Amino acid sequence: MNFNIEEAVAILSRTPQTLTSLLSGLPEGWLDCNEGEGTWSADEVVGHLIDGEQTNWIPRLTFLLEEGESKPFPVFDRFAHLSAERRTTEQKLEEFAELRTRSIERLRAIIETDDLLERTGTHPAFGTVKARELVSAWVVHDLTHIAQIVRTMAKRYKTDVGPWVQYLGILNR
Amino acid sequence: MNFNIEEAVAILSRTPQTLTSLLSGLPEGWLDCNEGEGTWSADEVVGHLIDGEQTNWIPRLTFLLEEGESKPFPVFDRFAHLSAERRTTEQKLEEFAELRTRSIERLRAIIETDDLLERTGTHPAFGTVKARELVSAWVVHDLTHIAQIVRTMAKRYKTDVGPWVQYLGILNR
Repeated sequence: MNFNIEEAVAILSRTPQTLTSLLSGLPEGWLDCNEGEGTWSADEVVGHLIDGEQTNWIPRLTFLLEEGESKPFPVFDRFAHLSAERRTTEQKLEEFAELRTRSIERLRAIIETDDLLERTGTHPAFGTVKARELVSAWVVHDLTHIAQIVRTMAKRYKTDVGPWVQYLGILNR
Repeated sequence: MNFNIEEAVAILSRTPQTLTSLLSGLPEGWLDCNEGEGTWSADEVVGHLIDGEQTNWIPRLTFLLEEGESKPFPVFDRFAHLSAERRTTEQKLEEFAELRTRSIERLRAIIETDDLLERTGTHPAFGTVKARELVSAWVVHDLTHIAQIVRTMAKRYKTDVGPWVQYLGILNR
């Protein structure tokens, strides 16, 4: 397929509302459960998505367009949210939605023409990457974390489902 | 944990709005892509969820409370939606939301007291099941299919993400 920035934005722009529909007002048992030691709750995943808006996606895209391949992207701390100050899930959902709206405005402003999507930069771990690969990864990163949240919540009922466990593959991942 | 019907309803009642937030108005490329031969697109998953409301969850729960273990549940056709008449994703999302609202009303009406959740019935494949296991399975079934939809959509960008594929585990499931 040919990468199309409006199709990417169609997903990026829906993620905050999807997470709010799924999580807003849920009992804490759903928001705070995780998959075991070292795994993240739904609440923590939203914190991680906030970090991504602040320090990963748009900052890296801007860096790529300004620096090209001359310098690698600054490293993104994937665990920063775990030491952030305590806010409610509700506050995090609102903050994520505001940040994402601004990120999309920035994305549209800096990708003025499609040829900019072919520009390259240097990822610290895997070398040369294109702007459109970064935007695609951003989209898939959203979808990955929605999947993580629903899988984490599903596992809370792993024993509750009784014999249905054998039909519900998500419980065994 | 102790199964709590209001916590189950908290998920069941959010699924239609979550799917609408994720899918409503998306370009068809996202709604119609699948994971390959014999797999379902997001649009087809919504059709399957409609079938579940009509012929699986509440009908089986009602059957369990009326018949106990004397007769197995009628078999649920998990592929019925593939032969259903063609409707738009938008229409399916609306239909699912209406059916789910009614299902939750029925659930609250028939589970008058918590002890009814301990009642048993016979599943055609795996024998004795409790009412609360059926309701739990319904919740996890929702979450499974949300995960399926986002995984299916993510895979559309499997090559687009370039080297990020190695960081995005969802693309390799």
